Amino acid sequence: MATTTDKASTRDRLLDAAAELFYRDGVSLGVEALCRAAGVSKRSMYQLFASKDEVLAASLERRAPEYGRMLHLGPEDPRSPRERILYVFEQLERVSAEDDYRGCPYLSALVELKDPEHPASVVALRVKGALTEAFRADAERGGARDPELLARQLTLVFDGASARAGAKAETLTGLTTSTATALLDASGM
Amino acid sequence: MATTTDKASTRDRLLDAAAELFYRDGVSLGVEALCRAAGVSKRSMYQLFASKDEVLAASLERRAPEYGRMLHLGPEDPRSPRERILYVFEQLERVSAEDDYRGCPYLSALVELKDPEHPASVVALRVKGALTEAFRADAERGGARDPELLARQLTLVFDGASARAGAKAETLTGLTTSTATALLDASGM
Repeated sequence: MATTTDKASTRDRLLDAAAELFYRDGVSLGVEALCRAAGVSKRSMYQLFASKDEVLAASLERRAPEYGRMLHLGPEDPRSPRERILYVFEQLERVSAEDDYRGCPYLSALVELKDPEHPASVVALRVKGALTEAFRADAERGGARDPELLARQLTLVFDGASARAGAKAETLTGLTTSTATALLDASGM
Repeated sequence: MATTTDKASTRDRLLDAAAELFYRDGVSLGVEALCRAAGVSKRSMYQLFASKDEVLAASLERRAPEYGRMLHLGPEDPRSPRERILYVFEQLERVSAEDDYRGCPYLSALVELKDPEHPASVVALRVKGALTEAFRADAERGGARDPELLARQLTLVFDGASARAGAKAETLTGLTTSTATALLDASGM
């Protein structure tokens, strides 16, 4: 039992450090620096994961539920589909104002890895796909003329906004909600 | 004279290789790989540039005029401000369909470097600022209600689209032009 617990704690420490460091410094961060920050030996890392790529993928996977809860209202919330969509952009505007904001971690990983078949890209594409799907479902319930098109348009805005805010090229306050509102209006929703 | 020409050719070779490799593989590419691809010794590189960071900045700078000509109609073109803005998105849709497309090189550099004060980020922010300014000038000439807001909205769409297409998360054909059209309409332009 002690061994199982130790392994779980080593794994958690490694994935928490990985999520933080890859987000802050980029995916090219080396194994040495990662293990040092996690307080885990390289040997322990390679007992748990086949490669750094797998650590990166697992660290993105681990944060996905929390990321989804941050962006979306729960299914029990009584607000309208339109308000649910705008809520996502209100949340984006809120978190992007934090000092250590570096953009959407899933989009950043995709941009940095430049390889859609990398194990971490596969996770990131799934998480980004879930965002588009959440937009699509709300767009459909809200009576948008073309729910799929609207969902893809909103995802462009989300990703452009997160990348630009992360790069300190833009301040999002009021900007993404006004953009999303124009697209919602144009879709007849 | 021979030395001046040699230096110019070494510089050009280095910057051409840098632009290509950093775009394809990311900004964490090492000096060894860069010099090997350019057929330039490290000594020659360091005679011309203080650091790899400066090579990256100069390679982005060197490609900026060509990038601008690819995206924008010349000032002599008779098309309307609205058509000029849509032309940018038509060009984006066209280039993003190419196999080796990896997104806007200036946005990618910003996302990867995660440091707005890096010399290459300074170049990239200037180039991205020029895009927003071109949108703003056309929006103003076209009578948009709030030219600056429209320009920032269009830049979100441009950057989200380029990042998503570069990451193979999206196919842009018809998508960015329809999104830009909705925003142009909403601005009364």
